[in-house]
Amino acid sequence: MTDTNANLKTAVRGVLLATAAGLAFGAHADEGMWMPSQLPQIADQLAAAGYKRDPAALADLTRPPMSAVVSLGGCTASFVSPQGLVVTNHHCAYGAIQLNSTPQNNLMADGFNAATLKDEVSAGPAARVFVTTDFDRVTDRVLANARGKTGRDYYDAVDSASKALVAHCEQDAGYRCSVANMYYGTDFYLVKQLELKDIRLVYAPPESIGKYGGEIDNFMWPRHSGDFAFYRAYVGRDGKPAAFSPDNVPYRPKAFLEVSTDPVAEGDFAMLAGYPGRTFRHRTAAEFADQVGTQLPERVDLYAAMIDTIERAAANDADAGVLYASQVASMKNNLKRAQGELDGLRRSDAVGVRKRDEAAMLAWLDRQPDAADARRDIDAAAAVIAQSQATRERDQLFGLMRSQTQLLKSAMQLQRLAVERAKPDAERETGYQLRDEAQIEASLKQVQRRYAPQVEKALLAELLTRYRALPADQRIAELDAVFGTDKTQAATALDALYSGTRLDEEAERLRLLAADPAQISASTDPLMQAAAKLLPAQLRIADAEKASDGELLRLRPAYMRALIGFRESQGQAVYPDANSTLRVSYGKVSSLDPRDGVHYTPLTTVQGIVEKHTGEDPFDAPQTLRDAITKGDFGSTVDPVLGTQTVNLMTNLDTTGGNSGSPVMDANGRLIGLNFDSNWEAVSASWMYDPRYKRAIHVDVRYLRWLMGKVYPAPNLLREMELPLE
Amino acid sequence: MTDTNANLKTAVRGVLLATAAGLAFGAHADEGMWMPSQLPQIADQLAAAGYKRDPAALADLTRPPMSAVVSLGGCTASFVSPQGLVVTNHHCAYGAIQLNSTPQNNLMADGFNAATLKDEVSAGPAARVFVTTDFDRVTDRVLANARGKTGRDYYDAVDSASKALVAHCEQDAGYRCSVANMYYGTDFYLVKQLELKDIRLVYAPPESIGKYGGEIDNFMWPRHSGDFAFYRAYVGRDGKPAAFSPDNVPYRPKAFLEVSTDPVAEGDFAMLAGYPGRTFRHRTAAEFADQVGTQLPERVDLYAAMIDTIERAAANDADAGVLYASQVASMKNNLKRAQGELDGLRRSDAVGVRKRDEAAMLAWLDRQPDAADARRDIDAAAAVIAQSQATRERDQLFGLMRSQTQLLKSAMQLQRLAVERAKPDAERETGYQLRDEAQIEASLKQVQRRYAPQVEKALLAELLTRYRALPADQRIAELDAVFGTDKTQAATALDALYSGTRLDEEAERLRLLAADPAQISASTDPLMQAAAKLLPAQLRIADAEKASDGELLRLRPAYMRALIGFRESQGQAVYPDANSTLRVSYGKVSSLDPRDGVHYTPLTTVQGIVEKHTGEDPFDAPQTLRDAITKGDFGSTVDPVLGTQTVNLMTNLDTTGGNSGSPVMDANGRLIGLNFDSNWEAVSASWMYDPRYKRAIHVDVRYLRWLMGKVYPAPNLLREMELPLE
Repeated sequence: MTDTNANLKTAVRGVLLATAAGLAFGAHADEGMWMPSQLPQIADQLAAAGYKRDPAALADLTRPPMSAVVSLGGCTASFVSPQGLVVTNHHCAYGAIQLNSTPQNNLMADGFNAATLKDEVSAGPAARVFVTTDFDRVTDRVLANARGKTGRDYYDAVDSASKALVAHCEQDAGYRCSVANMYYGTDFYLVKQLELKDIRLVYAPPESIGKYGGEIDNFMWPRHSGDFAFYRAYVGRDGKPAAFSPDNVPYRPKAFLEVSTDPVAEGDFAMLAGYPGRTFRHRTAAEFADQVGTQLPERVDLYAAMIDTIERAAANDADAGVLYASQVASMKNNLKRAQGELDGLRRSDAVGVRKRDEAAMLAWLDRQPDAADARRDIDAAAAVIAQSQATRERDQLFGLMRSQTQLLKSAMQLQRLAVERAKPDAERETGYQLRDEAQIEASLKQVQRRYAPQVEKALLAELLTRYRALPADQRIAELDAVFGTDKTQAATALDALYSGTRLDEEAERLRLLAADPAQISASTDPLMQAAAKLLPAQLRIADAEKASDGELLRLRPAYMRALIGFRESQGQAVYPDANSTLRVSYGKVSSLDPRDGVHYTPLTTVQGIVEKHTGEDPFDAPQTLRDAITKGDFGSTVDPVLGTQTVNLMTNLDTTGGNSGSPVMDANGRLIGLNFDSNWEAVSASWMYDPRYKRAIHVDVRYLRWLMGKVYPAPNLLREMELPLE
Repeated sequence: MTDTNANLKTAVRGVLLATAAGLAFGAHADEGMWMPSQLPQIADQLAAAGYKRDPAALADLTRPPMSAVVSLGGCTASFVSPQGLVVTNHHCAYGAIQLNSTPQNNLMADGFNAATLKDEVSAGPAARVFVTTDFDRVTDRVLANARGKTGRDYYDAVDSASKALVAHCEQDAGYRCSVANMYYGTDFYLVKQLELKDIRLVYAPPESIGKYGGEIDNFMWPRHSGDFAFYRAYVGRDGKPAAFSPDNVPYRPKAFLEVSTDPVAEGDFAMLAGYPGRTFRHRTAAEFADQVGTQLPERVDLYAAMIDTIERAAANDADAGVLYASQVASMKNNLKRAQGELDGLRRSDAVGVRKRDEAAMLAWLDRQPDAADARRDIDAAAAVIAQSQATRERDQLFGLMRSQTQLLKSAMQLQRLAVERAKPDAERETGYQLRDEAQIEASLKQVQRRYAPQVEKALLAELLTRYRALPADQRIAELDAVFGTDKTQAATALDALYSGTRLDEEAERLRLLAADPAQISASTDPLMQAAAKLLPAQLRIADAEKASDGELLRLRPAYMRALIGFRESQGQAVYPDANSTLRVSYGKVSSLDPRDGVHYTPLTTVQGIVEKHTGEDPFDAPQTLRDAITKGDFGSTVDPVLGTQTVNLMTNLDTTGGNSGSPVMDANGRLIGLNFDSNWEAVSASWMYDPRYKRAIHVDVRYLRWLMGKVYPAPNLLREMELPLE
């Protein structure tokens, strides 16, 4: 596909599709990742959408249902019994399942079903359940010392105020605290979470159910995965968080979710709470244009070129092919995601939609009394953004030279570590503290399994060629000093570096890891010397980034306040972009028309498991499950309309990474599903919620109940959740 | 997928799906490829399905609409104006479009639009339009001399009576006649067709519209292809068929179809007439079991092995890879079709359904007065079928040794030709008559482009290994004499044959083509000598096949009569299996649920063209079309419900190969679509019509009208069809 055609396609689609759908930002009833504290403000919307309880109650994190929604750190989960029973995704509990698996007792393959509390096994010392207990606005305290400052100083002032607040908060034993930045520096909240540390595995289906469809079905609908598992949180006999001990007792949560026993159908109200990671919905129109017009196409082009370079360099060397297989697979995944995001944003005409919206916002702003000040900050922010965009490709290329190589990366790590080791541990850069050294050692040890010299040289040659094609004012003196300024010089330099280095020997790398700074600086290894030359450039660029981040922290709030004011003038509330804090979205059970002529129904059934079954992973449904499907005894979990057992469920809920395991609730706040994925058409949703394509994929709790009732029975758990046994 | 798993899958599916759908043969309102003469018999069904005209009129081939439905030989078409205008598929007219294309005037790329009659161009001397004028039952005359005979004698008697009837019929100049065998020898019909020979190309869209989606979308829904073109049939000034001449005039058909201007929606009645090629719906349960249990799995295994053998033999030889690319592509297509048919028949539990139906038929038969005689013939037919099944794999392997090779095939052809040349031309075997020699020469000439010795030897070694693994009583003495009886002997023989032969030289092959029988038999070329040894085996097997065909021609009618009687007792008519004669099917515009969670709507729209457009073949929609879509001016062809322009249309009509170009009509017999494909889920429909999956894919005439009205305007043709210009 040529660019011309791609643009044309975009243009046609823009006119045809986006216009037809009347897309606009902030205009979709079902878009939004709301802070619980905002829900009373949008009570009318929630009620109109079908929520039957008091929306005001959702704002109180100490009351149900919100106090039942917990974070596992990366995943979301919820309490479903007064005895601390927690339900989440199979893939969120996978580490714990793996940890407890042995060749003789393979919980991954066979699943796990603790008959009694005593049979529950530890999810490991790192497993956590975080219960959010407080969420307080601390904007004034965070910004008190920042006001009047700019750039790096502003950044440092915010950082140090935040650290002080956290330290004070964490004086309360058993709690973990953090400061969350809302609306890009406009507001700050102190988040206080009870940190439960004795987490045990209670129930998991075999992975041939929990991961049914695997990578092939990942991001796909229709889906047929039993992606759920149960944990239980334990505390000391004093009721306080404690590390694993046989003496511990189940934690008694302040609230737990009731599991629904009602059927679910298209159009039903649905609500989800969880900890979504990161979105970019409120970025500026210029940032949208840059993402769609430059960043994503560049990433697609760059990753395609790197994949091609590695594959060509490894073409006649089967060993090299194996050594780079995992890196290439990861690059292909990156490429696919970038292409999917690009296609999606183009299909939604995200740039045009955002541009029109921003223009309307600015027009509104200009009619407000304090327009001039706001405009000044908004324009200044735009200049900072433009400035960092100007060197982004260069910085990215330099970053890839370090992250996508093995020997050069090792040399840079060793040089950086020598610099950081000269500081007190607390002041070392994250990633280079004492506690990180084991990880660095592991990384240095695995070089052998991922390295072939001709491939690393070819990859660097490719990245250097791209670097040299950038405008001359973007040159990095240190890079030029090491690799020269043309293709021939680069080839000569690479040959010399890689024929002269001994970093391809594990013993040498570990010797340098153990060496003191003086020994490092005395190293005559050509790659170590090159890394020493390059390090100042890396540090300089990182410093510039922090200064730029500080300026944006100072300036973006003007943009966000204008946006909030503009939306308010239209009677609309604005949710902050996702930042791993507790959020709520609401919407409905929804079908999807992914493309002309195709309609996806919102409920899948066990018939789909049989249709997909091949007997080979990832479509190897267990005999026990297939027999149960054939038997067709679905009891109380049968869908009254479909006349069979449902498996997965689709809604239009607003989710992103981090929402895995999020409870999906009905109009009465009862659990009807567990979020575990979204659809391929929605891969661009981190930038734009397009109501035509944004869907979330959940395990229907009726499938979970059927499996636990009739297939791999867990009657005690069903009783604990006050659910029918069959 | 192991066989065990596959069987298990089938078993589960059988229970789950087939039972749920209550599948049975002969029980679906919409199944059937009816002879027009049967339609009065099923008038009530037709009326109940929604047909609004007199079904009796459909039986008269001299009246509309049936007299408007014509054969192109392989494809179907229909008259749509009193001036002999014919509409069919773009892919059916492709040869004519290609023939008239030059680099300067590329009709394939640019389409064709004759402004006036004078601009219409010849579709070539081989192009034909056959108008069926008579369809008379001649069973008694065909079987008069066969009665009392068996085997080969029965076959010859039927053959010679048929030839006599055809010769007599063709005394009427301008007609082509044939005898069609209905219900496997139960009935014979003399088909008389007017043979129009001056066929001209009138209108065709660019192939980027006519073949939009190409091989990728082939067999797929949703579809977005403008697969249509217009011909015009010409005759001499006397109104009689004549070869191309500028003096000829448009043929005035006895009837033509009116093109509908009404919208179409799901559930609407639809009817299709055409010349379907071949189906196997009324084969015995044992044949179904053999097809699903043995033939198709064998074919899958065999083709996979041949592909693997060729790919391995060509692995280190890029040239060989190129030489065999087309053969491998064809084998892969065969493999895919066989796997699709197998999956489909298993999914439908075709064997179980057919077995239960046959058991019920035999139980019914046993209660009839003449049961004993019928049973005797049915059992005898089963024995003949079992007998030919016993050697089928062997005969197939021997056949593949000839058809999938180049040098061995050439040697066998040359030897066979020498034998046939000794006979009067009329008595020579089809394929070896004088008129076939040009084709043989062409085939001998193209050897160079498709041959590498190590590949042909590897392929023969593989086929011989499979042959030797068969039971000892299936040995072919001649094959053993040439290739030995174990792997080592075969390898030695192949080395000797291929190192000694000169058949890899084109000059040598052409010299032998020109040689007389004595020279052929004196040839010392080792492959020519091997072929001479193998030829008697080939002839012997062919003779045995004819004897077996004769027996089945004699015996199957008992089975068919029992089936017809059984169905009659249930109030159902039986259509004969397809045999390239004119048939009618009826049903409705239908959506499809191809798998759990997925629903296909029955109408696609121009939005799908935009969605699929990549700018690269086969998704390279012309700028003109895309501009027109963007403009959105759909005038009288807009779909009132969808609010946009439809493209393709799906029905549940009963079709098979040969139905390409068939007119699809509404309840009033007006043209609403042109059949051009069926869906992948229906690839097994030649054996079993499964109402859950059998669909046919058509061009919506509204897309055709819009293209001709607004995109590539042909106002004269629209006027000729009395259609609105926009």
